[in-house]
Amino acid sequence: MICLASPRILVIGGGPAGLSASIDLFEAGADVVLVEKEDVLGGTPKKLHYSLIAPDLKPVEEVLDPLIRQVESSAVTKKLGTVVSAIENGNGHVNVTFTSNGGKEEAVFDAVILATGFTHWDPHKKYEYGYGVYPDVIDFKDFEKMLSDDNLARPSNGKMPARIGWLLCVGSRDRQVGKFYCCRVGCAVSIKQAMEVKKKHPEIDTYIYYMDIRTYGFWEDQLYWKAMEDLNVKFIRGRIGAISKGDEGSLVAMAEDTILQRPSEVPFDMLVLTTGMEASQGTVEMAKLLGLEMEEHGFVRPLEADSLPVHTTVENVFVAGTATGPKAIPDAITEGSAAAIKAFNYVRRSRGKKATGRSMKKDARAYAE
Amino acid sequence: MICLASPRILVIGGGPAGLSASIDLFEAGADVVLVEKEDVLGGTPKKLHYSLIAPDLKPVEEVLDPLIRQVESSAVTKKLGTVVSAIENGNGHVNVTFTSNGGKEEAVFDAVILATGFTHWDPHKKYEYGYGVYPDVIDFKDFEKMLSDDNLARPSNGKMPARIGWLLCVGSRDRQVGKFYCCRVGCAVSIKQAMEVKKKHPEIDTYIYYMDIRTYGFWEDQLYWKAMEDLNVKFIRGRIGAISKGDEGSLVAMAEDTILQRPSEVPFDMLVLTTGMEASQGTVEMAKLLGLEMEEHGFVRPLEADSLPVHTTVENVFVAGTATGPKAIPDAITEGSAAAIKAFNYVRRSRGKKATGRSMKKDARAYAE
Repeated sequence: MICLASPRILVIGGGPAGLSASIDLFEAGADVVLVEKEDVLGGTPKKLHYSLIAPDLKPVEEVLDPLIRQVESSAVTKKLGTVVSAIENGNGHVNVTFTSNGGKEEAVFDAVILATGFTHWDPHKKYEYGYGVYPDVIDFKDFEKMLSDDNLARPSNGKMPARIGWLLCVGSRDRQVGKFYCCRVGCAVSIKQAMEVKKKHPEIDTYIYYMDIRTYGFWEDQLYWKAMEDLNVKFIRGRIGAISKGDEGSLVAMAEDTILQRPSEVPFDMLVLTTGMEASQGTVEMAKLLGLEMEEHGFVRPLEADSLPVHTTVENVFVAGTATGPKAIPDAITEGSAAAIKAFNYVRRSRGKKATGRSMKKDARAYAE
Repeated sequence: MICLASPRILVIGGGPAGLSASIDLFEAGADVVLVEKEDVLGGTPKKLHYSLIAPDLKPVEEVLDPLIRQVESSAVTKKLGTVVSAIENGNGHVNVTFTSNGGKEEAVFDAVILATGFTHWDPHKKYEYGYGVYPDVIDFKDFEKMLSDDNLARPSNGKMPARIGWLLCVGSRDRQVGKFYCCRVGCAVSIKQAMEVKKKHPEIDTYIYYMDIRTYGFWEDQLYWKAMEDLNVKFIRGRIGAISKGDEGSLVAMAEDTILQRPSEVPFDMLVLTTGMEASQGTVEMAKLLGLEMEEHGFVRPLEADSLPVHTTVENVFVAGTATGPKAIPDAITEGSAAAIKAFNYVRRSRGKKATGRSMKKDARAYAE
């Protein structure tokens, strides 16, 4: 028989990782408060109106809405349109100040799960691609919205594009802009976008410019091979040097084709910049309030990346999802669950310790008889 | 206050995922039995004597031994050298028969976590590479053992090799051998192996033959860039067609260099085949006993790969680690934790249902007052 007073746990962020952590903690018997600065749950995929999710090309709603509904219909306390404005963490108690339109409010927790996510890298910084200059150069998130609105049209003239190109690794794997790491999902998402285009409009030509195609695991045949063989998406190995204006309103992508070993200049009607991921402002701010260490790429440092990936450098603070680095949605959901049990067990252990004065390790089962 | 009789959960497999699931379940208050067919815990990484683990180049012991010690010193029931020989699953009870040298034994559980892992693809099947014919053609796991034994020597003559090559994607991304998917870790592990070599023996030449370098996420700069820039590991884009005997006992790797656009023939002293992953025999057998569906690549099918990756098609059976597909060690550990809370919560819900006759959804908190 196990008996314990319900652990009080704060989950910061209502995206895939935070939703997953909240529902699992609630079902395990914790008192859960989920705070989200936006007025809706679902995180970046919902806020930015992502379209279909790779590899099964399911609508984002089909993947995330069941999780959102579970949280909404549960007794998890949802604080939407609310930010965490102050945190005092000591003696096993986390005193948190929430700020919303309704004013300030305070509450005490035993542990915190940080699930504050990522933001898309701003492609204005890669000025040679002309984002913000040429209307038909758009980025990954603009194109997702276009697809989910079923409104595929050139921003410059509202016409259907005849040829679309994707430029992978914009703000990723690029020393020039100070972003060394790979975004883990750019290849898969771009291929998925091209597949969405080709399924509805097989007459549109689609080209993907890549350095390495990183459709790891099952994405290889589920996305890469399918796109190439069944849908005739074309892949060109090479990084685009610059984009310039061509004839009749076209855009010319100038690249070195590193397989054919020759310069390549192809006119396009639209170019999609597959932007990288970086830590969101919320992740940076909350990490500061919580006193967490950051790692070299600007994300939250896990206690041990290889064995304790959801622990942080502060013992009662756990982390899940893209706050620790780029990640696909299923991985963020899985980390939410993992952070949930780690936080739950942490509170069990620390209460056992207080109750008996014994060491934490021996007290793992203090409440289980 | 939460009170419940301890859920009884069986974890099958004592590798990274199973260890992680076991300790988290135990700490949450479950009665856990961990069954492992080998006589030691740690799974394939320990059984095959892996050397350092990417990206931090930590010894495998440093990553896995703390987890093993936690399980060993806990009251998790460890059944080593034992297999599950029969399972009857019905009415919320799983009747399991264990078979070991000591004979047969039966026990009843509320839920099962399958963590039966993967096996390295057998490179004999790619006959044109001469594994088993040329002694100096070895595979990924042979080389790991060599490194962990600190015994870097050509099998043919015991001498230190002057030039080593790695052939990526052996039994991966290869329609010819019926393995379409990518193994997710081959690039990283091969680069890691080359880094281990170069750190100890900078005079040895190291070449990696690749189709795409898939050092996703932070592996990009932590492994790929470091290997290339700091340690002078050389990367050649192209797939090796065949390996043949060269002069003075050397092996010649014949490739088409797809960047330089010319045939390449390089003599090596040793060639390492980076073999793919496939479902282990244990995974296939246990999935059959448990009545689980398999997916198209031969692994266990998660209930929903994109939102419920640790659920299976049987409601009281959960899955973690490489039983559902290739995966790095930290991801397997994380999935172990996720499967732990899903199994724990499943038992809570199903007991609530029985106790009150109410629907499962409403009973998520049946035991939490």
